[in-house]
Amino acid sequence: MGAGHTERMRVQWVDTDASGRIHYTAALRYFEVAEHALMRQVFFDTPERAFSLPRVHVEADYEAMLGYPDEFECTVRVVALGRSSVTYGYEIVRMDGVRAIRGKIVAVAVGADGRPMPLPERYRERLAPGAV
Amino acid sequence: MGAGHTERMRVQWVDTDASGRIHYTAALRYFEVAEHALMRQVFFDTPERAFSLPRVHVEADYEAMLGYPDEFECTVRVVALGRSSVTYGYEIVRMDGVRAIRGKIVAVAVGADGRPMPLPERYRERLAPGAV
Amino acid sequence: MGAGHTERMRVQWVDTDASGRIHYTAALRYFEVAEHALMRQVFFDTPERAFSLPRVHVEADYEAMLGYPDEFECTVRVVALGRSSVTYGYEIVRMDGVRAIRGKIVAVAVGADGRPMPLPERYRERLAPGAV
Amino acid sequence: MGAGHTERMRVQWVDTDASGRIHYTAALRYFEVAEHALMRQVFFDTPERAFSLPRVHVEADYEAMLGYPDEFECTVRVVALGRSSVTYGYEIVRMDGVRAIRGKIVAVAVGADGRPMPLPERYRERLAPGAV
Repeated sequence: MGAGHTERMRVQWVDTDASGRIHYTAALRYFEVAEHALMRQVFFDTPERAFSLPRVHVEADYEAMLGYPDEFECTVRVVALGRSSVTYGYEIVRMDGVRAIRGKIVAVAVGADGRPMPLPERYRERLAPGAV
Repeated sequence: MGAGHTERMRVQWVDTDASGRIHYTAALRYFEVAEHALMRQVFFDTPERAFSLPRVHVEADYEAMLGYPDEFECTVRVVALGRSSVTYGYEIVRMDGVRAIRGKIVAVAVGADGRPMPLPERYRERLAPGAV
Repeated sequence: MGAGHTERMRVQWVDTDASGRIHYTAALRYFEVAEHALMRQVFFDTPERAFSLPRVHVEADYEAMLGYPDEFECTVRVVALGRSSVTYGYEIVRMDGVRAIRGKIVAVAVGADGRPMPLPERYRERLAPGAV
Repeated sequence: MGAGHTERMRVQWVDTDASGRIHYTAALRYFEVAEHALMRQVFFDTPERAFSLPRVHVEADYEAMLGYPDEFECTVRVVALGRSSVTYGYEIVRMDGVRAIRGKIVAVAVGADGRPMPLPERYRERLAPGAV
């Protein structure tokens, strides 16, 4: 199991829609907040990255309701590392312990030329400690 | 194959992020624009619906780049109907004919009591003509 | 001077656009996060409000740059109370002490019939302590 | 009076919030869609601009309600040109003829060094025909 991070957040008013609950895209923004916090921790001391990690696959399952102003925890974890790809798993759990949403995102390392490239070893080690 | 609709759209500036291309959540908003256009056409003459259709599963695959101010067509189609569920398939195709994104969303009919309920027959017929 | 609240936040990736900095609407979302935190504090023990507070005027001045992943503090303060209206002032200050954005929003109390109504005395007292 | 453009649009579901109407930031996105359409028309045949136009002041007044799936027209017009600044005026008018929102945005031409610069003459002429 790879590196992970949990971020405590709150549903904001702008995240809702006229259904009275969150718009479904809000979940994807929550995923990203936790993921970026993880990436900042893992790579805080590295020079500017020479590659980007665009997303190639995204999925989410909505299991229980979230609405304003619910608090929740969003956990991200690196669940798989390919030669060029990183797969993240996500869970959004309400303060009453109920999991509201889970998700998975696959990102692929892309070099300055816009083509997939192998994840540099240093990044692999930090994203999946012990798994290299 | 069920009912479908194609909507021509343009990537807007607000859809981009600091990568210079669209933020990944923009795709899900495009899906919804086409889907709601479809639903307004299919149900234009029906009384206020007695049920809602919250999403329970969402997925998207990003195959080619989209950036401001690209124009594209987003097509939605009903690809499966369950007893309570509707599955939509989506394709976003750029004006150069390249498919940039495809997706799938599953929504479930939920009654006023918040519980899943069978899709009323009248809706089934319109969503999947000939398939009932 | 009325009630106030300061919220520490961070620019998120989704808040940026292809300019590499925040999209201008992000500031308005930050204002609202601080304002809603204030309103939850002020009214935490009140029953469901019998009125809403739609915005009738919004303005913002952008004075310095904000980009991902900058941290900042957003302060909201009640700067004026009319018979039916609440005027909030906002400041977004970066961690280097530079004010990046300031703003003002006017909201008007509207009853269940959709018409403006006087702010109930209990709310006035809490929004502008000593000012009543 | 300067160059202008009217764009027909529709309130989308994602633009709403739990109030059942649009979130107040939606208006600023609508303004930008019309403004960028104008700028694409005015500058369609110019080489890559050597300056950017970040916003320094934004304001909006909300006069009547907008909700999903209302259609409306958003008109933008160049209302003033300073040495370095462009001031746009906006109006959002519903299909029943009622003006729902109006706004004003001031943007300043900034060069590659991040400092304000005079608007090039060629741009001035196109933004304010007859006014130069």
